[in-house]
Amino acid sequence: MNLTRKLAAELLGTALLLATVIGSGIMAERLSGGNIAIALLANTLATVGSLYILIEIFGPLSGAHFNPAVSLVMALRGALPLRTLAVYVPAQLFGALLGAWLAHAMFELPIVQTASKLRGGQGQWIAEVVATFGLLLLILRAPASRVAAMVAAYIGAAYWFTASTSFANPAAVFGRMFSDSFAGIAPASAPGFVLAQLLGALLALGVHRLFGAQEATP
Amino acid sequence: MNLTRKLAAELLGTALLLATVIGSGIMAERLSGGNIAIALLANTLATVGSLYILIEIFGPLSGAHFNPAVSLVMALRGALPLRTLAVYVPAQLFGALLGAWLAHAMFELPIVQTASKLRGGQGQWIAEVVATFGLLLLILRAPASRVAAMVAAYIGAAYWFTASTSFANPAAVFGRMFSDSFAGIAPASAPGFVLAQLLGALLALGVHRLFGAQEATP
Amino acid sequence: MNLTRKLAAELLGTALLLATVIGSGIMAERLSGGNIAIALLANTLATVGSLYILIEIFGPLSGAHFNPAVSLVMALRGALPLRTLAVYVPAQLFGALLGAWLAHAMFELPIVQTASKLRGGQGQWIAEVVATFGLLLLILRAPASRVAAMVAAYIGAAYWFTASTSFANPAAVFGRMFSDSFAGIAPASAPGFVLAQLLGALLALGVHRLFGAQEATP
Amino acid sequence: MNLTRKLAAELLGTALLLATVIGSGIMAERLSGGNIAIALLANTLATVGSLYILIEIFGPLSGAHFNPAVSLVMALRGALPLRTLAVYVPAQLFGALLGAWLAHAMFELPIVQTASKLRGGQGQWIAEVVATFGLLLLILRAPASRVAAMVAAYIGAAYWFTASTSFANPAAVFGRMFSDSFAGIAPASAPGFVLAQLLGALLALGVHRLFGAQEATP
Repeated sequence: MNLTRKLAAELLGTALLLATVIGSGIMAERLSGGNIAIALLANTLATVGSLYILIEIFGPLSGAHFNPAVSLVMALRGALPLRTLAVYVPAQLFGALLGAWLAHAMFELPIVQTASKLRGGQGQWIAEVVATFGLLLLILRAPASRVAAMVAAYIGAAYWFTASTSFANPAAVFGRMFSDSFAGIAPASAPGFVLAQLLGALLALGVHRLFGAQEATP
Repeated sequence: MNLTRKLAAELLGTALLLATVIGSGIMAERLSGGNIAIALLANTLATVGSLYILIEIFGPLSGAHFNPAVSLVMALRGALPLRTLAVYVPAQLFGALLGAWLAHAMFELPIVQTASKLRGGQGQWIAEVVATFGLLLLILRAPASRVAAMVAAYIGAAYWFTASTSFANPAAVFGRMFSDSFAGIAPASAPGFVLAQLLGALLALGVHRLFGAQEATP
Repeated sequence: MNLTRKLAAELLGTALLLATVIGSGIMAERLSGGNIAIALLANTLATVGSLYILIEIFGPLSGAHFNPAVSLVMALRGALPLRTLAVYVPAQLFGALLGAWLAHAMFELPIVQTASKLRGGQGQWIAEVVATFGLLLLILRAPASRVAAMVAAYIGAAYWFTASTSFANPAAVFGRMFSDSFAGIAPASAPGFVLAQLLGALLALGVHRLFGAQEATP
Repeated sequence: MNLTRKLAAELLGTALLLATVIGSGIMAERLSGGNIAIALLANTLATVGSLYILIEIFGPLSGAHFNPAVSLVMALRGALPLRTLAVYVPAQLFGALLGAWLAHAMFELPIVQTASKLRGGQGQWIAEVVATFGLLLLILRAPASRVAAMVAAYIGAAYWFTASTSFANPAAVFGRMFSDSFAGIAPASAPGFVLAQLLGALLALGVHRLFGAQEATP
């Protein structure tokens, strides 16, 4: 598999993931008549379904990271060359942006937006540490044949049990900065989320090494 | 497996699929007291469950297309003879019509109806391109043993993240033209949806070929 | 596996199934504040989860029929001796009754009840034919390793797309006659439902034979 | 696998499980605008997703009990040394407490709380017997490759069909004593729940032995 195809897979997969997260957020908010719990339920189920199939489809092509925190940890483990990391991340970020724009195009909203929803504070930062810790620990330890279903199930749970609704992905933060909708996050809130995510990811790598053995096939 | 059995499988499977989509839409609308988000959630879950089992049951008999866009792409790949395509499509359309009628019979509505709900506009057409692109890319690249679960999960997500609630199937458009209910689509809106679907399907075939290799077993 | 263990498995499994259907109906009705769609969603999810695990657990012991229509079709196929059929059905019916009573005990309701909710009419009878047809066709054709997940997914869908909320099981009708709750059915409505179910089951056997081959391992 | 790693796995897994149960309860209650059915639906889905992935991740490390009733039954079967049982249980209880505290930290609530919600009465005690009986019977008889999905599906169902919303786990009771939120249970109510759970667990072991054979691999 050459690098161009890998990058195309990361870009397309991340775009479809963000289109799902943002698009289903818009749909859910429109239909739910102000009941946020129902909107988040719909947003959750759509994300679970998309994540599952995107990881199955793009896993054999690029590893289906769609997430700079995942790529970083893979690089730290020696499972991803540093020069590949250096191009995966821009592909993921650009894909995330395109996904936000695609969602806006489908819902006939202005394509270019900037989110105004502030997110953060100590609780939400702890939540992002926990959310990303759980995601990475799962990816590092899951049997390869089940990782798609497990990531999907985990994110579905984490939407609800973390106070931040579990972004757990710097590319998701990036894409959602460009959508002033249900799923948006103001750019000013992005650094705190991303730092917390990277902390959670490194923590997962550490705990994974303490538990030893039983590595997921990369 | 002779052709008659394949056609019976496509007809019966498409009929049960449309009976699910339309029937659960009617049930959900009746029970949800005007909360459209809850109605669409129920409609989604019913469709996911039915798609999963119908593809598992009829896959070994006919390939479980239930969808002219799928059959067309299979024909373009050389995986379905053109003369089989020419009879699959009518079987799917007729099955879809029967499914709509079966739903009406179960809910004691007039059997013969014509939908009045207009759907379309640039956003919804883009949505149908995206929805069908995703469906076909999935079908072309999924491992055969997981395709049923993946199609079901994908359509469940696409109900929410596409602005059109993801028809992604010309036979579904056809059947839903004959139901003036939650799931209906006015005949005047059908050509735009079908063209968008065919465009999305062809796009998926192109992208699939660019990614190369890893073909799903037909 | 001796017959006593098989009967115990059918009885216990059917009891837990009916305790789920009736118990989750009571819980859902209590919590949903009159929104029947939300109540039925909860009732659906509980039934899906229970069916899945009960079939996995009791399948190797008794076949996990929990349903006289299933046992009858198995007998007609020669996969169940007639004398076993003659004791399976009473075990299923008695289990269903115990399940209703167990649900009432858990929710501190009078143990012995008779349902007053009338169900029926042409639409619901057609719905029961369709629901049971689909269930049996699935059971006859599913790969053995997936039948539990498929039955669960199917019933989850059928709760919504059939106008009767898919009883599809004479033992479920029997147990639900003894619960004057969300899931109940008045005894006067039982014969129509059961006849429709048996008709649907026989129809499935016929269609299965027309499709030929690919038998599920019994 | 040395014992320290096993204990760390039990502690971390139980902590994440309780953080899910309590955290998603808090989130759901906040967002649902007083509709308890929707709150419990969200709480259910989050618990199902977390349980599935936690058992998959920690199963190979410690058996993924997260539950003193499970560990006790394993010890009674000779599948867990008594001295391991004696340290598993404190690890589970301490993990449960940490999970409650983690949920509070994420949602910016006072870390140290005591629940005030009284639970109990004959119906709820019967419900806990039933809930734990079902859980243990499942664990004792499930094929090892499916036990994670089955436990998750079962608990999702049991949240709804048992009158107690299925604690089914003395460590869950313990952790939830320290959270005055949606998922909390007053300390005064704990002994009744735990006794009922132990009774249900022993009953499951007895029934499992009556059915004989087909043991799950420990």
